[in-house]
Amino acid sequence: MGLDPRMDKEEQIPQHLVEAYDDPNKIITEFNKILIEKTCDLLPIIKPQMAFYEKYDALKALKATIKFAHKKDLLVILDSKRNDIGPTSEAYAYSTFKVYGADACTLNAYLGIDGIRPYLENYRENGLFILVKTSNPSSRDFQNLFSARLDEIPDSKTEIEKKSIKLERSYIHMARLVQIWSKNLQKFSEFHNLGVVVGATYPHELKIIRKIVKNSFILIPGYGAQGAQAKDIKNGFNEKGLGGIVNSSRGIMFAYKKKNYPPENFGKAAREEILDMNEKINKELGI
Amino acid sequence: MGLDPRMDKEEQIPQHLVEAYDDPNKIITEFNKILIEKTCDLLPIIKPQMAFYEKYDALKALKATIKFAHKKDLLVILDSKRNDIGPTSEAYAYSTFKVYGADACTLNAYLGIDGIRPYLENYRENGLFILVKTSNPSSRDFQNLFSARLDEIPDSKTEIEKKSIKLERSYIHMARLVQIWSKNLQKFSEFHNLGVVVGATYPHELKIIRKIVKNSFILIPGYGAQGAQAKDIKNGFNEKGLGGIVNSSRGIMFAYKKKNYPPENFGKAAREEILDMNEKINKELGI
Repeated sequence: MGLDPRMDKEEQIPQHLVEAYDDPNKIITEFNKILIEKTCDLLPIIKPQMAFYEKYDALKALKATIKFAHKKDLLVILDSKRNDIGPTSEAYAYSTFKVYGADACTLNAYLGIDGIRPYLENYRENGLFILVKTSNPSSRDFQNLFSARLDEIPDSKTEIEKKSIKLERSYIHMARLVQIWSKNLQKFSEFHNLGVVVGATYPHELKIIRKIVKNSFILIPGYGAQGAQAKDIKNGFNEKGLGGIVNSSRGIMFAYKKKNYPPENFGKAAREEILDMNEKINKELGI
Repeated sequence: MGLDPRMDKEEQIPQHLVEAYDDPNKIITEFNKILIEKTCDLLPIIKPQMAFYEKYDALKALKATIKFAHKKDLLVILDSKRNDIGPTSEAYAYSTFKVYGADACTLNAYLGIDGIRPYLENYRENGLFILVKTSNPSSRDFQNLFSARLDEIPDSKTEIEKKSIKLERSYIHMARLVQIWSKNLQKFSEFHNLGVVVGATYPHELKIIRKIVKNSFILIPGYGAQGAQAKDIKNGFNEKGLGGIVNSSRGIMFAYKKKNYPPENFGKAAREEILDMNEKINKELGI
């Protein structure tokens, strides 16, 4: 369940909560706690989206939410897509795992291994999810370039031909980098702690990436509000039906709107939405 | 001047400040204020690195620093390298410009235009700097792939040849995307508000990118502590000697160590370092 609190658009925290407290930290914490309380027996992980906690200057709510989730035996993936290098990357890792208390986070690896190494070396118990193919339409702008690795700059078309290069989409190279970086990582059961993010809106790409990063968890956002359905995420799981982490945020948090429930019943609506989601996904996976 | 407060390594905030206050917010604010006070007549912009304020749970210090910089007529680039899509991207933009109060920020555009559009459409007075070629050694991992845009997946080498593609490094494609995205932006003098980031450690790449994004400011980190010198950044400026924003963080903040000054004189050391940096850069630019 993604926890992306919103207070200013159509999809928002119910008015009775907004009016009950005057502090965004309290409003968001209360909203999240009720959602977790109502659903924690049905799901393994929550994924708070950092941007919304920053928007409302509500990092206290983020910390309180993570603490409460841990009490309920849930794991927490902080969706922050951080990226930097060396000591700065280390500072982000520290804030993610030590200040906010998350168990895992999402990362953008455009900067290469320099930005990932501090996490891999100093936080071996924590999980990482590298953006490979994101769920949005314009992910093609950059992620779908045709690319190749070469040792030197080719100075003619002939030279390119001589090297008989194989062009592949950029996101595939990103998946291969993850596979290379994870070679010496310890596995728990068959998975290690370096995962990837692939949008549920791209089932074809999910299939390709699942084959490259066999021992990575794939975090699959885009289910529900972004339009992806249970059949779309099947390719993110392995043949045993393992390795996929499907996320829905707005679809669960604001399910009361779609169901035309009174806002006070947002927790009940979220629970029903998750039950429906679980049933549909399990059916697709043949569980 | 980059403001990346550190309190736990060799390069750190002087001990007398750490001991004078027990709250990281106060320690960092005081350190930054003295640095700004001592140098504000010599520089146009400060660049706080978000990661360190998060690490010390010191967002109050970030806000206080930005406020103080504005009092001294400085602009502020928040180095946060945020990236996401749609309403989430909008939430990051809001926190950057409205909650923290920065004038500009750095962005990672791996996700394509979806992640940049909310900034361009809703914050036209603010500046953006898209990561193109980052200063670190492993930026080659992904940014230096050879890439091409094609309309369809080629299913054979022959088909690739037929299309007579031109392969270029991925970072060049990123620069071209910035150029495409900035086509309709309003220019102030000859520059618009969509800039790029190119590390001072890559002078060859700076030259290539300067030609592609003619009307973009180039934020050039890596001067000083990361090893780049004045001659390396020359290529980031245009023929009039404009358009480059050279950043040094540790080299200025912790100049007192290199100069063997008593820690109390960190402000004086920073000022001297900037004077030296300005002189060297102006000499290279023939100013």
